[in-house]
Amino acid sequence: MANLATAVSSLAEAKKYATLRDILSTMNAADIALLFDDLPSSMIPLLFRLLPKELAAMTFVEMESDQQELLIKGFSDSELKDVVDELYIDDAVDIVEEMPANVVRRILGSADPETRKMINDLLKYPEDSAGSIMTVEYVELRPHLTVEDAIKAIRRSGVDKETINICYVTRADRTLYGFITIRKLILANPNTLIGDLADTNVIYCSTMDDQETVAKMLQKYDLIALPVVDGEKRLVGIVTIDDAIDVLQDEVTEDIEKMAAMTPSDKPYLKTSTVSLFAHRIPWLAVLMLASTFTELIINYYTQRLSMFGEIAGGMLLACIPMLMGTGGNSGSQSSVTVIRGLSLGEIEFKDILAVIWKEFRVSILCGSALALANFGKMMLMNTLVYHHSGAAFTAYLMVSISICLAILSTVFVAKLIGCVLPILAKMIGFDPAVMASPFITTIVDVTTLLLLFGIASVIMSTVAVL
Amino acid sequence: MANLATAVSSLAEAKKYATLRDILSTMNAADIALLFDDLPSSMIPLLFRLLPKELAAMTFVEMESDQQELLIKGFSDSELKDVVDELYIDDAVDIVEEMPANVVRRILGSADPETRKMINDLLKYPEDSAGSIMTVEYVELRPHLTVEDAIKAIRRSGVDKETINICYVTRADRTLYGFITIRKLILANPNTLIGDLADTNVIYCSTMDDQETVAKMLQKYDLIALPVVDGEKRLVGIVTIDDAIDVLQDEVTEDIEKMAAMTPSDKPYLKTSTVSLFAHRIPWLAVLMLASTFTELIINYYTQRLSMFGEIAGGMLLACIPMLMGTGGNSGSQSSVTVIRGLSLGEIEFKDILAVIWKEFRVSILCGSALALANFGKMMLMNTLVYHHSGAAFTAYLMVSISICLAILSTVFVAKLIGCVLPILAKMIGFDPAVMASPFITTIVDVTTLLLLFGIASVIMSTVAVL
Repeated sequence: MANLATAVSSLAEAKKYATLRDILSTMNAADIALLFDDLPSSMIPLLFRLLPKELAAMTFVEMESDQQELLIKGFSDSELKDVVDELYIDDAVDIVEEMPANVVRRILGSADPETRKMINDLLKYPEDSAGSIMTVEYVELRPHLTVEDAIKAIRRSGVDKETINICYVTRADRTLYGFITIRKLILANPNTLIGDLADTNVIYCSTMDDQETVAKMLQKYDLIALPVVDGEKRLVGIVTIDDAIDVLQDEVTEDIEKMAAMTPSDKPYLKTSTVSLFAHRIPWLAVLMLASTFTELIINYYTQRLSMFGEIAGGMLLACIPMLMGTGGNSGSQSSVTVIRGLSLGEIEFKDILAVIWKEFRVSILCGSALALANFGKMMLMNTLVYHHSGAAFTAYLMVSISICLAILSTVFVAKLIGCVLPILAKMIGFDPAVMASPFITTIVDVTTLLLLFGIASVIMSTVAVL
Repeated sequence: MANLATAVSSLAEAKKYATLRDILSTMNAADIALLFDDLPSSMIPLLFRLLPKELAAMTFVEMESDQQELLIKGFSDSELKDVVDELYIDDAVDIVEEMPANVVRRILGSADPETRKMINDLLKYPEDSAGSIMTVEYVELRPHLTVEDAIKAIRRSGVDKETINICYVTRADRTLYGFITIRKLILANPNTLIGDLADTNVIYCSTMDDQETVAKMLQKYDLIALPVVDGEKRLVGIVTIDDAIDVLQDEVTEDIEKMAAMTPSDKPYLKTSTVSLFAHRIPWLAVLMLASTFTELIINYYTQRLSMFGEIAGGMLLACIPMLMGTGGNSGSQSSVTVIRGLSLGEIEFKDILAVIWKEFRVSILCGSALALANFGKMMLMNTLVYHHSGAAFTAYLMVSISICLAILSTVFVAKLIGCVLPILAKMIGFDPAVMASPFITTIVDVTTLLLLFGIASVIMSTVAVL
């Protein structure tokens, strides 16, 4: 892509416009938009004007909003009208939503009255609702038409519709009656009535449904478009699969960001300003840092009483804290992330909570035992190779080693249970499970881990002292 | 769903088969499969036999592979043939891939010779290749046909094709010439030649392309199907959008699992055995636990030399370790996860590495300073409220507080840089960036953090001692 950008730059500087037009005309809108991203902004209006009308509109849709804004500001009124006329309504709405007010006024001003009305209607739906991502361009048929009439009607009106692969059949009051695929239409006897041919078992959503729910419906039922109805069950739009995929990807990015202790952002990384990145990252960092005051207080408490464990034991207990916390944190986030993803994909529901706990219980015993054994082996090896304790010192070393291994087992156990239960509980009370991911759970696990470590060590060391 | 399951159970036990058939016939395949999941396995063969033929096949595709296997084992040969005949080839291949050898033999045995050959051909493609997810059922047209003839040809042969929304135009040697949407066909003059109408600027992939790349192409270009060609550029299949979405979701799940230090699994959580979950989680847990031997050695080294910091300072330094490591780990994983997601969405490329470093540099200074200041405030407050140090003790407390705050600043700085650079470098040398996520980076950051903390404290405390 970078090489193409260089070539296009040189051609533009050499004013080889005919060659440039030939190159650009063979490209796809998405690729042209990517190419524009690699070129100096000053060059883009010129190149954009070289594009054929339809390709220009498609490219415009694919561009980043800052570049769209730049282009619009440079457009003459008639140029702007050309682009706006070619846009699908849902794309136009997406663009309008990103623009500052003065640009929005120019766009709406250049649209014909009908388009302007449709854009304004769509702008009224709340962000993240099905209404905000639907298009109002679809093919609508009536049940009393014959297949032949229907095909004629589509021929007459279908050119501008975003998808005519599926036609929707509505009653006289515009309530949804059924749907019919263009494939079925073509294969059908021309005299059949649309009402008889239509599939009335139609899956639909409402304008106010959450866009993520709607996108998942398209995925679940393998649909390429889903009809959207208003409060009176009248058909008002369709959500198409390309928009649904984008919604699904955005939601995943949001989930991942939340799991990594960031507040979600909706801009691509390189387009996000430093201050905005800072603002998305600092809240959780600060909360989690201040929350670790608890671990500080616990360690403080025990370091002042280290002598109760004896010199060797005290040092060993302090030294193993990062290992224990790391292991607890990793174990917990494995469980929480698995459960969060399962919840998001619908593989896990509330009613599965006991099954999940029972599974994590067994996994934690397996993982915990394996890690405890591995660590015990390592500590014995370290003594042979490095420390060379013997006699009473070895007894102390052995007792702390055992305490640490028991702490590993119990930490893994607690971490995995907290990790699997918290996201499900969060979802139950209407919270977003994704914020219950690693960093949050790690903080809880940290405190538990320290209490377990020093608790187990106290019991074991005092038992030994009594014997 | 649970209530429906109860109702269906009772109806089945009361042998109300006509009612059950009526209920099931109005449902969608995906919902029936979910319902089956909530019912006892013994009930499923009976319910399955109540479904109309086509719906039965569609439901079969949506079911989990263990339930499919159970059903097939209970099928008579003619029942199996009914289902297999109704399946799309790509779905049949997906099912065959999940079944044990003896079931595969029965499925292939019940398919007609042509279907068997198509399934066998598709099974040859490597897992994760475009060939393995493509379907061989599509509409193929020749350039010399008129639109009218083409529509007739589609009417004759199109009934069983998975998608006829897009028809592919091939030359006599079956190489790809272009494509034509059914919409364009319907809107066109019946006498136009297909060759003149077809769009020859066609995006395609090769059988051996990675399925994730192919799925992303469908997304990028807003396609509902993508043609697949073999080594000689002959059209051999198409990848449809529904399969592409599943690939995208699976890849995201894999990425998330890798980021949480698990080896990826391809089964839903509740269907994965405890031993298999254990096997996916223990490798990284063990590696990361053993890797923290380094932090153990560093802490061991400094606890034996704690007296060089004085009593107050020594305890404070030890107590702040979990907070520092947590902050470093969280900062690092914010950067790594953001960059990994950016790489995966194609928003970040190799050439952006300097831009990314420069951005993370500025963000890390902002985050680090804010956290250091917050922590300093907290420590001063803690002294007023809890510790009440004064005189020389306060000077020591102040000096350690400053050391810790400087350690926070430098830890955040180092963590964010490592976090953003490692995933990009990993991708550069052909590694999966996702394994460079939080846990791996946290371990590196842990070691750096400890060295920074004790290093900075040594310098500051010895400077104060000299003064």
